[in-house]
Amino acid sequence: MDYSKRSVKCHKKWRGKIEIKARVKVDTRDRLSTAYTPGVAAACLEIKNDIDKSYELTRRWNTVPVITDGTAVLGLGDIGPEAGMPVMEGKAALFKTFGDVDAYPLCIRSKDTEEIIRTIKLFAGSWGGINLEDISAPRCFEIETRLKEELDIPVFHDDQHGTAIVTAAALINALKLANKKMEEVKIVINGAGAAGISICKFLMQFGAKHLIMCDLKGIIYDGAPWLNKAQMEISKMTNENKLQGTLKDAMRNSDVFIGVSGPNCVTKEMVQSMNEKSILFTLANPVPEINPTLAKEAGAYILGTGSSQYANQINNVLVFPGLFRGALDARASTVNFEMMKAASVGISECVSEEELSPEYILPYAYDKKAHEIVAKSVFEAAIRTKVSKIYK
Amino acid sequence: MDYSKRSVKCHKKWRGKIEIKARVKVDTRDRLSTAYTPGVAAACLEIKNDIDKSYELTRRWNTVPVITDGTAVLGLGDIGPEAGMPVMEGKAALFKTFGDVDAYPLCIRSKDTEEIIRTIKLFAGSWGGINLEDISAPRCFEIETRLKEELDIPVFHDDQHGTAIVTAAALINALKLANKKMEEVKIVINGAGAAGISICKFLMQFGAKHLIMCDLKGIIYDGAPWLNKAQMEISKMTNENKLQGTLKDAMRNSDVFIGVSGPNCVTKEMVQSMNEKSILFTLANPVPEINPTLAKEAGAYILGTGSSQYANQINNVLVFPGLFRGALDARASTVNFEMMKAASVGISECVSEEELSPEYILPYAYDKKAHEIVAKSVFEAAIRTKVSKIYK
Repeated sequence: MDYSKRSVKCHKKWRGKIEIKARVKVDTRDRLSTAYTPGVAAACLEIKNDIDKSYELTRRWNTVPVITDGTAVLGLGDIGPEAGMPVMEGKAALFKTFGDVDAYPLCIRSKDTEEIIRTIKLFAGSWGGINLEDISAPRCFEIETRLKEELDIPVFHDDQHGTAIVTAAALINALKLANKKMEEVKIVINGAGAAGISICKFLMQFGAKHLIMCDLKGIIYDGAPWLNKAQMEISKMTNENKLQGTLKDAMRNSDVFIGVSGPNCVTKEMVQSMNEKSILFTLANPVPEINPTLAKEAGAYILGTGSSQYANQINNVLVFPGLFRGALDARASTVNFEMMKAASVGISECVSEEELSPEYILPYAYDKKAHEIVAKSVFEAAIRTKVSKIYK
Repeated sequence: MDYSKRSVKCHKKWRGKIEIKARVKVDTRDRLSTAYTPGVAAACLEIKNDIDKSYELTRRWNTVPVITDGTAVLGLGDIGPEAGMPVMEGKAALFKTFGDVDAYPLCIRSKDTEEIIRTIKLFAGSWGGINLEDISAPRCFEIETRLKEELDIPVFHDDQHGTAIVTAAALINALKLANKKMEEVKIVINGAGAAGISICKFLMQFGAKHLIMCDLKGIIYDGAPWLNKAQMEISKMTNENKLQGTLKDAMRNSDVFIGVSGPNCVTKEMVQSMNEKSILFTLANPVPEINPTLAKEAGAYILGTGSSQYANQINNVLVFPGLFRGALDARASTVNFEMMKAASVGISECVSEEELSPEYILPYAYDKKAHEIVAKSVFEAAIRTKVSKIYK
């Protein structure tokens, strides 16, 4: 199906994928006086005296902006704030449908790290959490880190952690099928941007020990002259044998390939050079790192892509609605590793041992039950790790 | 009725007066692929190539933020961004109910004029128009003026112009009843903040010639030493006889009193000193400048207040939903005087000559028909004055 043409046509028909809904009636004098002046003044004063009441008397407990600067939208690159909006609106619709979270799309016309941080902070009192979206690396690292440090509400950069969480969930289940262990497998990650670096760090926290990262210039090794700050940090934690060379060299005798890079950079031969029961998550969108049919012919055991057109869609849609639902319900002050890990494990456990097969390692993105499980898992992890402001 | 207690109780029950509604279904693989990846990329690229398409392919054509810094919320003063939220949410609910406009409440934690301007501009690509709210004078003048100059979407500071528009509508009808002329009446405005100054300028554009403004220090005259920049400007356009003194002196032999000040600053004697068929709009909220019963006893001919508890509620609720509906439908590049005047005249004409009485000079705030008339009038004025980007 040509989704492009159909999508433009549908967007023209929809004229917006979200809208505002009034939750109160203001159609009589009495109702107007209660929801608005003069009555509303009393609600304002309650919050003035205790800012925490903003979670009781306004929608703050359930609101999350989806904020982008439009610099890394899908695989389209820097397309600007207005052009990023269809994706942000889409996310807001997904947030509502699968998490009942009131997400609002905001596209900021700035690429200046400090300005983006400052601007978001100025509005933070309006929201219960903040979802950063499609901000290019390495600025996204600084922006997220600083906002997490300086705000006491959950801040989450979906491109980094959403992708890492769902990839880890997929890998947990794929390794079960391949009968291999996270600690033992050799994992190659191609693409050292926001998603790749986050996946790498996240898998290490899950116990992965043998990782090699590549980017367009080849294998990342400690001392490689072209690395940015984030890549330099990763170069010291990966590639224990200080291998140099190309992606092809990295993939030889590896067990897992994770691509968050570009179309068609993996060949049949490279897949054939991997160990038996190879696992390939080719997440480049819309065209994956290798055509799934080719990869299968080359002997790939388990394949996952970012697209809904093939089996095993590995998409962060499975993550963010439930993750924020759980974090908001707990009134968490942050999103920590335990909460993200709980989301991964929760997603992986949605597929029972009986259901698990090389063609079905993850629940479908539109499986409402899966989102509920993510929410519950994250909620419980927030309380367990004592970041909930209301449950002790 | 004690609206305060009831309002707090209702706000606790509501937990937010607006929410996000998804306008698309994303519950199957096909639908997800159309509204979100991979299909959505095509919609993004359409906008990248022609930013105007953001009005066709996203909700931009219908979105307006309600932005405040929380410095002049109702009569409560500077209560901060979180505490301002119940009012902003209320406005958003009114925007939706009466104008079908998707308004989103945003409270900004800054009082710095330049920072507020810059921050709003950074997000302007996400919106079809901007409603400024409850920003204290004189900063609100600079903020609105600059945003109007620097953006090509409608910018409207409701506290200034919404109040002016509805007050003018009320005055048009009150003068009909009193059989007096705008050009001839002596008008006293008490309160030289955002609303007072805007009302004064707006009435002058409607033909009013004899205006006196007062503030806490008394009558404003050219050369008074305590004036701020905006008041200094107004001092040269009003008080042609350079009268000095108190509000009491100003009101003697006046025809119209408009209060946008504070509770109980007008006495029975002051009302008695006015000309026959006196008109008093005592808009201080929730307690007016004089108790309406007292004012009636003192001989006031027509009384209006800001509250829904008395006859003749003069509230900008009658203005902003329809004004933005009309401006958005026309895709106006600004809100100009002709559009505001059309809103005033539209509102005044909602009350027929037969219906018009001292107890009924304005349609009710919840009269849907009135909002439709405002929208239509503003829409037509935008096209007539050639500020519509789509209708020539």
